[in-house]
Amino acid sequence: MATFITKSWSGLVYRCRAYQKLAPCRRAHAASSFKFEDLQVSLTSNPQPKPDPEKLLFGHQFADHMLEIEWNLKTGWGHPIICPVHNFSLHPSAKVFHYATELFEGMKAYRGVDNKIRLFRPHDNMIRMNDSAKRASLPAFNGEELLKCLKKLVMVDQDWVPDSTSTSLYLRPTMIGTEESLGVAESHKAVLFVLSCPVGPYFPTGMKPVSLLADPKYVRAWPGGTGWTKMGSNYAPTISVLNAAHDKGCQQVLWLFGENHTLTEVGTMNLFTFWTNEQGEEELVTPPLSGLILAGITRQTLLDMARQWGKFKVSERNITMKDIIKALNENRLKEMFGAGTACIVCPVERISYKDEWLDIPTMKDGGPVVSKFLKDLTDIQYGRVSSEWTVIVD
Amino acid sequence: MATFITKSWSGLVYRCRAYQKLAPCRRAHAASSFKFEDLQVSLTSNPQPKPDPEKLLFGHQFADHMLEIEWNLKTGWGHPIICPVHNFSLHPSAKVFHYATELFEGMKAYRGVDNKIRLFRPHDNMIRMNDSAKRASLPAFNGEELLKCLKKLVMVDQDWVPDSTSTSLYLRPTMIGTEESLGVAESHKAVLFVLSCPVGPYFPTGMKPVSLLADPKYVRAWPGGTGWTKMGSNYAPTISVLNAAHDKGCQQVLWLFGENHTLTEVGTMNLFTFWTNEQGEEELVTPPLSGLILAGITRQTLLDMARQWGKFKVSERNITMKDIIKALNENRLKEMFGAGTACIVCPVERISYKDEWLDIPTMKDGGPVVSKFLKDLTDIQYGRVSSEWTVIVD
Repeated sequence: MATFITKSWSGLVYRCRAYQKLAPCRRAHAASSFKFEDLQVSLTSNPQPKPDPEKLLFGHQFADHMLEIEWNLKTGWGHPIICPVHNFSLHPSAKVFHYATELFEGMKAYRGVDNKIRLFRPHDNMIRMNDSAKRASLPAFNGEELLKCLKKLVMVDQDWVPDSTSTSLYLRPTMIGTEESLGVAESHKAVLFVLSCPVGPYFPTGMKPVSLLADPKYVRAWPGGTGWTKMGSNYAPTISVLNAAHDKGCQQVLWLFGENHTLTEVGTMNLFTFWTNEQGEEELVTPPLSGLILAGITRQTLLDMARQWGKFKVSERNITMKDIIKALNENRLKEMFGAGTACIVCPVERISYKDEWLDIPTMKDGGPVVSKFLKDLTDIQYGRVSSEWTVIVD
Repeated sequence: MATFITKSWSGLVYRCRAYQKLAPCRRAHAASSFKFEDLQVSLTSNPQPKPDPEKLLFGHQFADHMLEIEWNLKTGWGHPIICPVHNFSLHPSAKVFHYATELFEGMKAYRGVDNKIRLFRPHDNMIRMNDSAKRASLPAFNGEELLKCLKKLVMVDQDWVPDSTSTSLYLRPTMIGTEESLGVAESHKAVLFVLSCPVGPYFPTGMKPVSLLADPKYVRAWPGGTGWTKMGSNYAPTISVLNAAHDKGCQQVLWLFGENHTLTEVGTMNLFTFWTNEQGEEELVTPPLSGLILAGITRQTLLDMARQWGKFKVSERNITMKDIIKALNENRLKEMFGAGTACIVCPVERISYKDEWLDIPTMKDGGPVVSKFLKDLTDIQYGRVSSEWTVIVD
C-alpha cells in the first residue's frame, strides 16, 4: 500500500495570516475557547430514515444531529452541545440578517473500503475557519477542540455516512452573529454550529465536464477585500451572476480580474490549467494565494501531489485569458479543471468569453492529469491508500 | 412658508438600473407583488413601555409591531401581516446564514412641529430596495404597495414616533433568503420584514465632528461588484476595518479607491467636500454614482438643495487625497461632511492618512454649509417647511 508523505501546509497558513494583519482582532480573550470535555450530547428520539444513496441531492437532507456552541462577549463560549437538528429562534434584528455577519467551512466524512470513517486534512479547515472569523470580527476558538467535537458529531451520526466510495457526509461548520441590535458593528453574540448532510457522487454518470462563463464585467474579489475568506458575503453577490451564466448555457462562472483578464477562481472551486507552456515545458498552473482567491484545501492537495509526482512543472502564478487563447491556438492547452471539496475535481470543456466559445480539450484523451488526481485523491479519502492527510473518526 | 420643488430623481434611478443590467433577473413573475389591500393586522396584547427620548441608543429598542411578508417561488408573495415583533424560527441551513442572501433599507418617520408624522422621499427607498433585491436574486415587489403597508405600520406604532424635533422612528425594511438548503443558488423562499426603533438625536450635544481613517489598504467596493446596493454583504467586511479605525482614534472609515486614493464614501454615509477649487470657484463636490458608492437619498437631497440655492458650483466628480492635501495646504478646503439617513449630516474634523493627521477645518467658522444643510433638511423633515419630498402618514 502506497503512503503519501504529508507536506506541511505552512504556505497556505502563513499567507492567510498575512492578510489577517489587515484587520487586527481586538478581543482580549480571543484565545479562550470552548472545550471538547464540556460537550453535552442529547440524542434524538425520532431518527429520520436515511435517504437512498442513489438519489442524494446536495444540501437538501440533513443527518439527525447538529453541533451547537453559543458565544457572547461577556461570558465567552458556552458548552458545546450535540442535539437533534432544530430551528434557530432569532430576533429579526440579529446582525446576521442585516450585515452578513457569518462565515462557513466545507468538509466531508468518507466511509472507506475498510468501513472506517475518515476526515481529510480537517486541521486546515479549523485554521481557515479561525482566519475567516478574525476577518469577520467573529470570535476565535481552539480548532483542535472544535475538531474533537466534530468527530463526535460524525460518530453520533455515523449511520448517515453513506456506504459507497462515491458518496460522503458533507459537514458544514458555520458561525453567525446573533446580537439583537441594528447598527454596523461587531456582534456581541454568536452561534457556531455544524450541520451535516449525506451527498451523492458529484458526477453520477462519470466526470461530466462543465462550461464556464468568463465575463470581465463581473468581479468577485479585489485587493484589500475578503476574497480569501469563507465569509458569507463573498457568495451573495455571485448568485445573480451564476444565473447569468446559466442563461448562457454555462454551469459556473470563471471569475476574471483586472484589465489583462487574469484567471482567478470558479467561486466554489479553484482553477487548474495543464499545458505545454511557451517555454515548451509541461506545466500545471494555478493562480497564487494573492488574497483574491480562496486558499482551497483541495487546491493545496493537488499542488502537493503533483510536486510529489515530479512529472511536470508545478506553478502558482497568474495567467490571463490571452495566454489561454494563445495556448489553444497553438494546441498547447491540454486540460483545465476546477478543484474543491464538493466536486474533488471538475473538468472544464468550454469557456464563454467575449461572446465566443472556447473549446477546452480536457477530456479529449481521457483527461489523464485530472483523472489521476481524482483517482489518487479518492484512493486516500476512501482508505485504499493510507495517508497522513486523513484522520480516522473513532 | 417656503416650498421646495422636488426634482425628479431620475439620475439616481437610471444609473442604478444601468448596473442592474449586469445581473439580469430571470424570474418570470418578478412583476407580481403582495398588495396592501390584503394586509392583516394583529395587535399586541402586551404593549411595551416607551423609552426615555433622552436615552435612546440606536437600534437597541424596538416598537411593538413589525411588518412581515413571506415569499416562495411556487406561490409568490403571501399576505402582508402587521404583528407583534417576534423571533423568526429558521432552519440552520437557511441560505441567509451561509451565503448572505439579504438586503436592507434605512428610513425614518419624523413627528413634525404640527404633530403630523412624515416620511422623507420614501419612494426612493422602495426603488433602491427593489434594485438591491434584483442584484441579490431576491424577489421583486411593488414598492408602492410596500410603502402603503409601511405607512400602516407607522400608524399602528405612532406612539413610538418620539415627540421631539431631534428624534425619529427609524424604519428598517429587510429581506432575507430562507430556503432550507445548502448550495450557492437563488433562495426559493424569502421573508420581507420591517422593524422600527425610536432613535435619538445623532448629536445629543450638537453636531459633534468625527475623525476618519483613510487607509488605502482597505477597499470597500470595486467596479463590477455590488458597492452601489444595500446588500448585507457590503457591510460584514467593513466591521474589522471599523475596529481598526477605532484603534486609531477614528469613529469611521473613509474608503479610498485605486492608486490615486480617490475618495469614495464612509460606509454608512456619503461624503461631501466644500472648498475653493483650483480654478478659484466655491464648489461642493461629492463622488459620482459610478457603482462604487451607495446612491444615498440624503446625498441626492443635498445635491438637489445646493443646486436650488445656486450659491456655489455643485459637482459629482472624483477627487483624490492629493487634491485634499493640496487644498488644505493652500487653505482652500472649507468643510467636509458625511450625509446619510441616520446622521443627516456629520462634520469631519480629522483624517488619519499615511500615519499622519489631516486637520479638516469644517467647524472652524461654524460650518456654514453643513449647518445650513442640517437646518434646511430638518425644517422639511419636521414640517417647519413644506416640501413635496415628504409624505404624511395618516
